[in-house]
Amino acid sequence: MARVVKTKTEFEGNFFEQYIVIEGDELTPWAADEKLEKVGKCTPRVDGSERVTGDAKYTYDIQLAGMLYGRILRSPYPHARIKSLDTRAAEKLHGVRAVLTHKNIPQIPLRMGQHFLLEPTLRYAGDEVAFIVADDEEIAEDALELIEVDYQELPFVIDPEEASQPSSPQIHLNGNVLNGKPEEYERGDAEKALREADVTIEARFTTQVALHNSLETHGSVCAWEGDSLTVWDSTQHIYGVRAGVAQALGLPLNKVRVIKKYMGGGFGSKNGAGKYTLLAALAAKKVGRPVHMMLTRKEENLAAGNRNNTIQYLRLGAKRDGTLTAIYLRSYAGLGAYSLWGTSPGGPARQLYACPNVKTIQYSVFTNTGPMAAFRAPGYVEGTFSFEQAIDMLAQKLHMDPLELRLKNYIDTNPMSGMPYSTKGLREAYERGAKLIGWRERKSKKITQGTQRRGFGMASQIWGGSGGPPAYALCKLNNDGSATIITGTQDIGTGTKTVLAQIAAEELGFPIERVSVELGDTQDGVYSPLSAGSMTLPSVGPAVRVAAHDAKEQLLSIAAQVLEKPKDQIKLKDGLLHVQGLEKPVELKEVLAMKLQNFMIIGKGARGPNPEKYSVNTFGAQFADVTVDTETGEVLINKIVAVHESGRVINPLTIGSQIEGGVIQGLGFALTEERVLDRHTGLVLNPNLEEYKVPTALDVPEIEHEMIDRADPYANNLGAKGVGEPPIIPTAAAIANAISDAIGVHVTDGPITPDKILKALNKTQIGGNHA
Amino acid sequence: MARVVKTKTEFEGNFFEQYIVIEGDELTPWAADEKLEKVGKCTPRVDGSERVTGDAKYTYDIQLAGMLYGRILRSPYPHARIKSLDTRAAEKLHGVRAVLTHKNIPQIPLRMGQHFLLEPTLRYAGDEVAFIVADDEEIAEDALELIEVDYQELPFVIDPEEASQPSSPQIHLNGNVLNGKPEEYERGDAEKALREADVTIEARFTTQVALHNSLETHGSVCAWEGDSLTVWDSTQHIYGVRAGVAQALGLPLNKVRVIKKYMGGGFGSKNGAGKYTLLAALAAKKVGRPVHMMLTRKEENLAAGNRNNTIQYLRLGAKRDGTLTAIYLRSYAGLGAYSLWGTSPGGPARQLYACPNVKTIQYSVFTNTGPMAAFRAPGYVEGTFSFEQAIDMLAQKLHMDPLELRLKNYIDTNPMSGMPYSTKGLREAYERGAKLIGWRERKSKKITQGTQRRGFGMASQIWGGSGGPPAYALCKLNNDGSATIITGTQDIGTGTKTVLAQIAAEELGFPIERVSVELGDTQDGVYSPLSAGSMTLPSVGPAVRVAAHDAKEQLLSIAAQVLEKPKDQIKLKDGLLHVQGLEKPVELKEVLAMKLQNFMIIGKGARGPNPEKYSVNTFGAQFADVTVDTETGEVLINKIVAVHESGRVINPLTIGSQIEGGVIQGLGFALTEERVLDRHTGLVLNPNLEEYKVPTALDVPEIEHEMIDRADPYANNLGAKGVGEPPIIPTAAAIANAISDAIGVHVTDGPITPDKILKALNKTQIGGNHA
Repeated sequence: MARVVKTKTEFEGNFFEQYIVIEGDELTPWAADEKLEKVGKCTPRVDGSERVTGDAKYTYDIQLAGMLYGRILRSPYPHARIKSLDTRAAEKLHGVRAVLTHKNIPQIPLRMGQHFLLEPTLRYAGDEVAFIVADDEEIAEDALELIEVDYQELPFVIDPEEASQPSSPQIHLNGNVLNGKPEEYERGDAEKALREADVTIEARFTTQVALHNSLETHGSVCAWEGDSLTVWDSTQHIYGVRAGVAQALGLPLNKVRVIKKYMGGGFGSKNGAGKYTLLAALAAKKVGRPVHMMLTRKEENLAAGNRNNTIQYLRLGAKRDGTLTAIYLRSYAGLGAYSLWGTSPGGPARQLYACPNVKTIQYSVFTNTGPMAAFRAPGYVEGTFSFEQAIDMLAQKLHMDPLELRLKNYIDTNPMSGMPYSTKGLREAYERGAKLIGWRERKSKKITQGTQRRGFGMASQIWGGSGGPPAYALCKLNNDGSATIITGTQDIGTGTKTVLAQIAAEELGFPIERVSVELGDTQDGVYSPLSAGSMTLPSVGPAVRVAAHDAKEQLLSIAAQVLEKPKDQIKLKDGLLHVQGLEKPVELKEVLAMKLQNFMIIGKGARGPNPEKYSVNTFGAQFADVTVDTETGEVLINKIVAVHESGRVINPLTIGSQIEGGVIQGLGFALTEERVLDRHTGLVLNPNLEEYKVPTALDVPEIEHEMIDRADPYANNLGAKGVGEPPIIPTAAAIANAISDAIGVHVTDGPITPDKILKALNKTQIGGNHA
Repeated sequence: MARVVKTKTEFEGNFFEQYIVIEGDELTPWAADEKLEKVGKCTPRVDGSERVTGDAKYTYDIQLAGMLYGRILRSPYPHARIKSLDTRAAEKLHGVRAVLTHKNIPQIPLRMGQHFLLEPTLRYAGDEVAFIVADDEEIAEDALELIEVDYQELPFVIDPEEASQPSSPQIHLNGNVLNGKPEEYERGDAEKALREADVTIEARFTTQVALHNSLETHGSVCAWEGDSLTVWDSTQHIYGVRAGVAQALGLPLNKVRVIKKYMGGGFGSKNGAGKYTLLAALAAKKVGRPVHMMLTRKEENLAAGNRNNTIQYLRLGAKRDGTLTAIYLRSYAGLGAYSLWGTSPGGPARQLYACPNVKTIQYSVFTNTGPMAAFRAPGYVEGTFSFEQAIDMLAQKLHMDPLELRLKNYIDTNPMSGMPYSTKGLREAYERGAKLIGWRERKSKKITQGTQRRGFGMASQIWGGSGGPPAYALCKLNNDGSATIITGTQDIGTGTKTVLAQIAAEELGFPIERVSVELGDTQDGVYSPLSAGSMTLPSVGPAVRVAAHDAKEQLLSIAAQVLEKPKDQIKLKDGLLHVQGLEKPVELKEVLAMKLQNFMIIGKGARGPNPEKYSVNTFGAQFADVTVDTETGEVLINKIVAVHESGRVINPLTIGSQIEGGVIQGLGFALTEERVLDRHTGLVLNPNLEEYKVPTALDVPEIEHEMIDRADPYANNLGAKGVGEPPIIPTAAAIANAISDAIGVHVTDGPITPDKILKALNKTQIGGNHA
């Protein structure tokens, strides 16, 4: 019987009360020294073959009989009003089946009325103007050109700090600053502490807009059956898309089915229904045929979300011995045209070290640019870039080793809530990382010959990643000793299917190939949270374990009855029943299929509540070894070392992929990735993969990574925490610190491109000869 | 927690012990006078719109990227051996992707080794020789012609009585009689009783081979993803197909997924994996692309199963007052080339009346013809045709009203087991039917003018239809007050989705449109039995009710906690929470979605065991009013009255469709439908819908039907029994008896075509002038 539990969940020191519904009893976590057979072992992707052979069907691959293709007309101006709009020529084009505009569809409010699905006001260059469905994509694209729109251009603003001023063009009725004021946090008295500090530093940092560029663009295929809608969607949250579509179209949840079986990546921008989803659904209803609507790469980079830029003013104060006494941050984050929330670049500043006086003032500001979306550790990537550079600046000023300074301010309890961390392996991560990069010996490795300068840097990482309820799972056992796990989660490419199969196989005592994992279907699945926030494994994994345990207990009860043996004399291992008193183990199939034709056992499980007395976080440290060419400004990364602690390691292979992927993405953020916007026209100049520079295979250095594999006794029944976001968090800061170590000056504006290095060098001795 | 229950299930007086696994507690059946809101109400098909608009996707409609099409080469001879086979020319045809023969695929035994998937021995004209997959169906068909086969013809036999002789050509190693001997049943001493009877009758009956001719032919679409196979199949048992495919291909059950969302009918021949399924799966694996393999109408009628023909020798004995004292039946059923079981034409003889001395000897015999398959009430349609005519013959001889004779021998306990029937509404069915047809006044309506002769006839029906375990269901509740029922059953066109939605809506207290029913997917669903044997509703329905009840109880517990009210003060009705002390009912959404973001409730249910002390059966009576033209032999059916008792009526609309469909199919069996086989070549002459005469709309007379709506207190928690098969059972016998009533002579060979009527008339006074 399900029961309701009232829980408190901590997030950055704040507590949220929540009712959760629990199915089944929570299990005792596996002990740290428990001998596990499947969990912790390198396990290749269970769906690897499908993914590499092309058997796997992604949203783009969905083909339905009679399917039409959609295309979107987008605003050419960063801020405008549609004065008039004529779609007659487009409608007449042979093969065009429908044209949707704000004039012929219902007014559907989005983001709590912040804007409408289609409306005459356009707030960025790329905003949706009209939607065409046609027999093929080419016809739809041709038809876009035939829509005549008369735009009235409006004044626009693209810089968030500038946009925060009342004099700037207003994008929304309630002004450009989200919620009308900055988000403030304070503990102690930071201003006073700064005044009293022995040493202070002060710096302005900026971080650029970065684009997600998942291999698979955003998109949906919508098909109606009677009054029920099925949406295939490239999403990180099928239940989120379901809720969004149901709300927008006024449908009950049981009439909307969202499916996502395979997905070409998602980094936070695919958490809900897009305008493309709703437009495809409306058009499919109108024309009575399925509609396929996938964004082009250009649209993906204009309209599907991005990592917001930031401007951060940061001041630190410390005692002579390195004890941090004050942190003061004022930041501006550019939300683009639409957002309900702002990221929190102050997160690392508030939490990484034991500092009694901290103040953060965070402005989240609308601008006439493409909308912000969560992007792998939103806020923390930007905040760590600035804060961990500031720590190095302070170390320099104090003449302390940067690692010693960090250890000096190490804290085992959450400085915001005062609660102890469930586990914190950061100290060990420092130690291992320092050893692997050769931190203590780094001075002997420094090169200063010719134009080459070698440097070493490091940065720390903190992030949540505890996951939590609600998340459910079912475990169905067949009478041949095979199992199917049903969840409603999604494998966005991270290996969710594989780790869930490991967990179920471990708990059941089945071989892994006898366990299938079904996911990505709201109608057949059971609720799971979004695959974001590093929460998939720690939310869904524990539910799967409970479901498998429930099923196993039922199976053993049945076996006991059929074999007429006490249940506690029967053990399951590798799919065989080991029965006390019997010489040889018995195949499940033999015992059960014979006596119990076609029976099925159904185990249920839910994620239990998070601990109320512990703060569950993930930690890590990265070290960079770089060589900078002072003549060209080019940075060669010799090596990155990444050591992280995310609780118990379930699968070293998939966790390794996460670490490497995070580091590589961090590398791009540090050095090359930047959405370039023309300040005069408000247009994006590089919405493509040619000019937006994601690291290629040749750009990737040696990455050495290790996990501090520590079963977390409080986090959940697996002892595992998330690892999706942690590895991207400290990379750019570690590289920036290594560059500074090499050239003697900090480059405080991201990305650290050769021109910025040369500019910084111009102010220093090293670069002087270029001035 | 699931538990194992050891049950006894009665079938025709035999008890089968079985372990079953039960989830959740069985519910008390709804009382007969319980006021139900959804159950018992005329409810249009919940998926009616999809079915009529073309939104519904049948197996034939499945389209997958890169899909190929399969075609089967079939034996042109009724019994032959492949001497040699050359596929080179076929393989060379452009667009042909693979050719499978017995030479290049594994030897896969079917029906416990009775035959192999492909093998050199061919046992009927239509037996599978080779399989081709090509880019389209036309190429595949062209390629069939290019396969060169050298056949060695073997002697063959097509008459089952002849085939039962040892001297006849042998089709299988163990001889032509299934299990080597007839199936015998005896109670009392039938031979002695016949010798001692006041009155006896004796007759030989034959029934023809009938073809199922579902609108949708058999077929499968097979696609592999890595080592997992998905099969879309037009089947009445997705889990049966899964088991068959897994066993044949050596796969664990979790690696085979079978899907059937919509289906164009099934009457018993679609209960498992076909050779077409396995060939498509093997070919899809070989070529690495999906394969679409649907039978043509011709293949459907040659190779996909049929209602076996029978030869029945029947003798009855009775006392002068009409008391039946002896029944003796010897029957031969033609199995065609392959079958593991034989039908039981003796079922009605053994059970319909209170006769102490009964003997049935049933031969099931292999012949060189297309394989037999279950066809809507297998055995009982054939057995009722003969037995209920024999009862009329006896009535004639006794000068008794046929209905009086039946009532004279009425019995309220199962004569095979001695157990009372849970309910038996046959007496009421007789009464209502007699009234509706005007039975008592029929003599006054008889016409004897010109060549027109009017007659009235009736027949009784008995059938199982109790359903039973195992069958499972889940009920998921969303936080907006909508629900999804998950089962693993299939709606073969009967309205399963609709009645399950009614049951769930009733139990939940939800509006029906807030309940979706998912079925037809082995991987996401939970085990349900085949949709055959009139068992879908009484097996799956009770499981759905338990699951919905479980979910509702959880929901009320949660509502009680959130509202801080005792649970028993909260009632659910039409999706609203009625709370004691609150003036207005509260929307579920308001209470729950606010407090419990994204929660999901999961209720589980299973079908409980059948009662051990009652025999659960269905009953009915049909009456026919016909006019025969003695010059042409044509039969005009003026009216059929059908009154049935199948426990509680869940949906009068769907039950009405079943009754009408059954009567119409019975009408075809009575008068026109017959597979015609050429005795000299062993070839089917009418494997098509032009020459195989299914009744058309114009052939359908007035059908008046009523249900004796009686909640069965023992059958299951719904009080409902099955109704799929009952209505076809007595139709042909009632029509035959009416014809006999009209023309004064019984036509004992089906179908009763004009030529047979004229031939029978030749032997009588009426027909004398045609001699």
